[in-house]
Amino acid sequence: MISKNQIKLIQSLKIKKYRHKHRAFVVEGDKMVKELLSIDWKKENEGLVKRIRVVYAVKEWIEQEQVLIDEYPSLQFELISAAELAKISQLQTPNKVLALVDFNDLSMELSLQNSLVQHALVLDHLQDPGNLGTIIRIADWFGIERVYCSNDCVDLFNAKVIQATMGSVFRVKPYYVALEKLMQDAKREGLPIYGAMLGGEVIHKSSFERKGLIVIGNEGAGIRSSIQPYLSHKLSIPRLGKAESLNAAVATGIICAIACL
Amino acid sequence: MISKNQIKLIQSLKIKKYRHKHRAFVVEGDKMVKELLSIDWKKENEGLVKRIRVVYAVKEWIEQEQVLIDEYPSLQFELISAAELAKISQLQTPNKVLALVDFNDLSMELSLQNSLVQHALVLDHLQDPGNLGTIIRIADWFGIERVYCSNDCVDLFNAKVIQATMGSVFRVKPYYVALEKLMQDAKREGLPIYGAMLGGEVIHKSSFERKGLIVIGNEGAGIRSSIQPYLSHKLSIPRLGKAESLNAAVATGIICAIACL
Repeated sequence: MISKNQIKLIQSLKIKKYRHKHRAFVVEGDKMVKELLSIDWKKENEGLVKRIRVVYAVKEWIEQEQVLIDEYPSLQFELISAAELAKISQLQTPNKVLALVDFNDLSMELSLQNSLVQHALVLDHLQDPGNLGTIIRIADWFGIERVYCSNDCVDLFNAKVIQATMGSVFRVKPYYVALEKLMQDAKREGLPIYGAMLGGEVIHKSSFERKGLIVIGNEGAGIRSSIQPYLSHKLSIPRLGKAESLNAAVATGIICAIACL
Repeated sequence: MISKNQIKLIQSLKIKKYRHKHRAFVVEGDKMVKELLSIDWKKENEGLVKRIRVVYAVKEWIEQEQVLIDEYPSLQFELISAAELAKISQLQTPNKVLALVDFNDLSMELSLQNSLVQHALVLDHLQDPGNLGTIIRIADWFGIERVYCSNDCVDLFNAKVIQATMGSVFRVKPYYVALEKLMQDAKREGLPIYGAMLGGEVIHKSSFERKGLIVIGNEGAGIRSSIQPYLSHKLSIPRLGKAESLNAAVATGIICAIACL
């Protein structure tokens, strides 16, 4: 069962304003909900997810996952019809299960000094939800724990972002920050700041320290001019053909594959 | 002006069956149409595009691009209203211009022997349109001229594929082929066949020949088991974190960045 008010609430979460008003977002689909349930709750307060309010699922999923459901006695699982699911789903093809989730505050006072033990990604005005989600998945693959998003990046809780992370959003820690402040802190603390720029040093020939910030620019405009002076290492991915640019997530993957190994 | 029949024809091209029946597809948006117009027509018969039937544009675009339009005296530019454009557009937010394009046959008798001068990509059952488009863009960046798609890959002329290539689809040559036949030919001719597989050799430590096939597997299932025995080099991208997998286009970018340089 799902009430009309609850349907209305969940539908409102398609819009950023309401996600942040209610501090809630949706997680959809069998794989994503299972990733959500597998969060290490001892670390709960450090992560993105504050708590799972309720998991809505159709009969087929409830029956199939009874063993899993029994592992979470304090969690509310609600049986709904396929028609009800279609009303609250943000997917083109609704799956069988959808969780309503409260999130933790992602802005924070940054203390890079004692806390950064490896590379962190910094995203400058990233706009495409699929790119943000894919980059969080890349971070999770390469063991990067932090992704700093500039305050003007696309909203993390956009359903397309969440889905594109394939569950990595529950392991990687994304923060929204004032970018220049972050750069100033990193510079003061002597951290290297890497960024891909036209005319930079060929990335394959660069040497990377064990920890630093890797800045990824906006899909169209690259790294904004006010941030460029902070880069201690300008890198480039050699172009052998004619494409004007690489997709931002692909470029991130290439840089991480070389910088993290 | 655009006739009702023409609107109907273009709308039908949302569906693969009709794209292939009419051997036509649409190219949308200012950037993409300009990339289309900039095709080197001397190489016309070798490429994807057979001819541009007509370019539909709203008044603003026609006025703004008069100089460009004058460069193509034999090409038909048609002024249409924003409402008409919305009817034929496949974009969520219709742009100002849309071209109707005839395509060339993409299946071919392969003769790898004398023709392959560099690496070529081979896509095994790739399903996501965004991934296929992004991979074509990657190929174009790294100077890879050929992308062989298995016959069960997503249709190249899907609007999402075309848009995601950012114009690279007009420079890279994509072919649809019987995958096993291609593998047999490559093996007979002694070409190396690289493929990313769990448990493969760490890609950073691999050495690459100057030309060969690089096989990219399906998003969920990887490289199909009937193709795996053909791989002469099994590669892996080291995983330092917890993500189950990398996005197929991101993995392609990483492999190309290492294999092509």
